[in-house]
Amino acid sequence: MNIAQYIEHTLLKPDATNAELINLFEEAKKYNFKGVCVNGINVKKAKEYLKNTDVIVVTVVGFPLGASLSEVKAFEALKAVENGADEIDMVVSIQAVKNREYDYVKKDIETVKKAIGEIPLKVIIETDLLTKEEIKEVCEIIKNAKADFAKTSTGFVKNGKGAQVEDVRIMAETLKNTNVKIKASGGIKTGEQAIMLIQAGADRLGTSSGLSLI
Amino acid sequence: MNIAQYIEHTLLKPDATNAELINLFEEAKKYNFKGVCVNGINVKKAKEYLKNTDVIVVTVVGFPLGASLSEVKAFEALKAVENGADEIDMVVSIQAVKNREYDYVKKDIETVKKAIGEIPLKVIIETDLLTKEEIKEVCEIIKNAKADFAKTSTGFVKNGKGAQVEDVRIMAETLKNTNVKIKASGGIKTGEQAIMLIQAGADRLGTSSGLSLI
Repeated sequence: MNIAQYIEHTLLKPDATNAELINLFEEAKKYNFKGVCVNGINVKKAKEYLKNTDVIVVTVVGFPLGASLSEVKAFEALKAVENGADEIDMVVSIQAVKNREYDYVKKDIETVKKAIGEIPLKVIIETDLLTKEEIKEVCEIIKNAKADFAKTSTGFVKNGKGAQVEDVRIMAETLKNTNVKIKASGGIKTGEQAIMLIQAGADRLGTSSGLSLI
Repeated sequence: MNIAQYIEHTLLKPDATNAELINLFEEAKKYNFKGVCVNGINVKKAKEYLKNTDVIVVTVVGFPLGASLSEVKAFEALKAVENGADEIDMVVSIQAVKNREYDYVKKDIETVKKAIGEIPLKVIIETDLLTKEEIKEVCEIIKNAKADFAKTSTGFVKNGKGAQVEDVRIMAETLKNTNVKIKASGGIKTGEQAIMLIQAGADRLGTSSGLSLI
């Protein structure tokens, strides 16, 4: 198993230094990671640094609260694509999920998807804040809204656990026989965890501990 | 001292329920708080609920990481104003502050200010992540960029302390003899804390513990 090709080497903390960013890009090239995942402010720099490589540039939208307007998320996604982002990870309106406003949730996803066309869209559902039932239901919505990935976590929930094997299993079960893939993210720190998440159904891993994993 | 008129009654967690929101609005009216502070997704509802009252509606932009593009922050701010927001609390690019890219920081603020015209703009500097020297320097930039408030914290830093009396004192000292006001926010839970922060120079308090304070 080539774990490196599952990994999106991730740096999303708000006070990242330029040296840390350059280091992220260099490591992604050196270890042949699938991609890097950075904040919107860093997409252009990432793309410039990683041109002529296979490393894709992933960025986040409505991150990490998912509480901005759908049209704001769409605008943010579009600007990211214009700056060179290869994939977009949006945070869904968690509030709308909790309030069972499922039409809103679907439209939230569709609005961003429409703005970015063929660019793959991942939908972060923040499993730490959802019940097992809500995880299932939001995965159904993701399927209907034709997003490309369901993603577990932002990694920014206070005392959150991030990607859990059991949650990934529920997501995989709900999404089987569809084209929707799964990204596990948040708190992934060891190779063992990585393998268990992949075995549970994860197609992609978001982690800032990529070097420990391989 | 009428503490209620210092308080922005705040609910920014991503999984807020509709009942919690309504409760926030009701309490703000009942206790005559200065305002409510809610996520972008809730501005319209807040404005509708609080019409015919003196309670202002405050919202956040680029929140809580400050790591979206300036033009995205500006768009988000403009949409909030269109939905009825009376004041905008933006998170500055903390990354740019840490990297001493001060021209970027100034432009980040100016871009949002330009988008919203006369609507008051608060600039969240996330004191937990800055040195005392950086707090001073970013307050100088806020002054030059003609924002209306400097604000201490998002309340979302892992293990962050939020508003500290000493930090507010530094901000007040840097901003004295200017029109720039100060909002203290994050971790304010008691009336004693509130009074100390006001005495140190805070003109506004952002807290989800408004009822304990009064």
